[in-house]
Amino acid sequence: MRLGFDVGGTKTDAVAVAPTGTVVARIRRPTGWGAEAVVATVAGLTAELADTVGIAASEFHSIGVGMPGQVAPGSAVVTHAVNLGIARLDLEATIGAATGLPVRAENDVKAAAVGASALHGAQRGDGGSIAYLNLGTGVAAGYVTDGRLWRGAHGAAGEVGHISVDPRGPLCKCGQHGCIEALCGGGAIAERWGRPGALPVRDVFDAADAGDAQALELRSGLAYGVAAAIRVIVLAGDVDLVLLGGGVTALGDRMMSLVVSELASSAASSPFLRSLRLAERVEMLPPGSPAAALGAAIIGAEATEQEAVAHG
Amino acid sequence: MRLGFDVGGTKTDAVAVAPTGTVVARIRRPTGWGAEAVVATVAGLTAELADTVGIAASEFHSIGVGMPGQVAPGSAVVTHAVNLGIARLDLEATIGAATGLPVRAENDVKAAAVGASALHGAQRGDGGSIAYLNLGTGVAAGYVTDGRLWRGAHGAAGEVGHISVDPRGPLCKCGQHGCIEALCGGGAIAERWGRPGALPVRDVFDAADAGDAQALELRSGLAYGVAAAIRVIVLAGDVDLVLLGGGVTALGDRMMSLVVSELASSAASSPFLRSLRLAERVEMLPPGSPAAALGAAIIGAEATEQEAVAHG
Repeated sequence: MRLGFDVGGTKTDAVAVAPTGTVVARIRRPTGWGAEAVVATVAGLTAELADTVGIAASEFHSIGVGMPGQVAPGSAVVTHAVNLGIARLDLEATIGAATGLPVRAENDVKAAAVGASALHGAQRGDGGSIAYLNLGTGVAAGYVTDGRLWRGAHGAAGEVGHISVDPRGPLCKCGQHGCIEALCGGGAIAERWGRPGALPVRDVFDAADAGDAQALELRSGLAYGVAAAIRVIVLAGDVDLVLLGGGVTALGDRMMSLVVSELASSAASSPFLRSLRLAERVEMLPPGSPAAALGAAIIGAEATEQEAVAHG
Repeated sequence: MRLGFDVGGTKTDAVAVAPTGTVVARIRRPTGWGAEAVVATVAGLTAELADTVGIAASEFHSIGVGMPGQVAPGSAVVTHAVNLGIARLDLEATIGAATGLPVRAENDVKAAAVGASALHGAQRGDGGSIAYLNLGTGVAAGYVTDGRLWRGAHGAAGEVGHISVDPRGPLCKCGQHGCIEALCGGGAIAERWGRPGALPVRDVFDAADAGDAQALELRSGLAYGVAAAIRVIVLAGDVDLVLLGGGVTALGDRMMSLVVSELASSAASSPFLRSLRLAERVEMLPPGSPAAALGAAIIGAEATEQEAVAHG
């Protein structure tokens, strides 16, 4: 049995996964701030999951950790996890040493892509070629073909958030205009909305429903940005399906219907886009999907596979 | 020794490649129109190359053919090769049967990407992660990591030409506005220029040098389109290097200096883009590079590898 963790800025989602790929136990706990607290969170959840499934922690086969930040391919070293107050964290030297288990890490969006692909494959009977598009504070995607993550040269493949799709669009914090993330990132929308509130994107949708001009502009920009991201992802990566997840998707059909309508309107004027049937190739992950933690568990399993090869 | 063919709309480029990867013979001949003529061209060049290197045609190990159009993965069946007057052509059943050699086909841009990666790897000592961006009548790219082509679900990964990067940009023949191809495709530029001439993109550059307003707009659009393609390719695919090829690159430094200056100007206003050092990650293939034919030969070699596995 393998463990997977999705370490987010506020919560950590932990799963124990059977060899069949089934999630047999799942626990969520608040994430601490900084490297030491993150390690303690993961170690504590490892013990809790061992209790839950009734085995010793040392009997788990591997640990996989998904985390915002950069991860060197095939390693357990995370850097630039700014949201967690972590400049650099070697999870093998910390959690690995504490538990005696092999550890692998991956960027959280990439981990979610692997998990989303597995959930999709289990449902459809094959892995196929998918992308996971994370619509959260920021915007990024991950590509998975037949269960295999396409990482690119430095693990940054799928970083579509800062592709500009409108040179006259809103200024992005990266310095460009009309970035996909400037249009549909939760952080950028909250900043341009500028009014207090715990759920700014929902507030924008509510205000747009009530006819507020700024909110209408922000909302149509969001739909354009998500549709543009889907077009970029499908055209650059040729995937069968784009799975949407992340905080902004909590708006559910209120968001999805606008995105589908934006895709339909661009298809209406372009036979080429029509032939791609993009609206049929987009799905939202169900709310509370364990995709990222499951994906982390799958990536963690690579640690033991690699050791099996290395040690014969 | 393996054969590779780049079957273009006007010319076919044929190479014989040694097991070391070296091109030992190269012949170019006009391409015929239609399936029968294309098959005759390839069969004729096979015989000529056999003569040139002094072996019987049956002693070659494999044939690889790059061709505009769609190719089913791992097959020798080409469809929609419109420029060649071909709706469907099974190269295994035709050239394979005529020569007794195993045959594989690939889209010509994808074949050029594989060849460009091999040429780059031979030069630098490793394969790395590259994209080949073809700037011809149309615009498309291919991704190669460690010598392995990333095809996507249907062999269309890298089709960046119809990604819109400006909703107020010129109308593309696909029906969208501001597509990368509408900005920097040789066909779209010739059409908008609308004046007679054998080399319309060169004419546009000459007229821009002379201060013609329409030419200046077309030329700066071309630079914006190529720079946007490079940004999309690097951000979506995370490659170390983008290699430029295709007819438009015959303009050499006249084009390259504008693209580098466009990349520099976007980097000046964006610390994020600056960190990507895009201008340092773009190179042009040398004029007359055999990338596509060499890539076809490498892809053709997969035919014998697959048979070796299938037959033990």
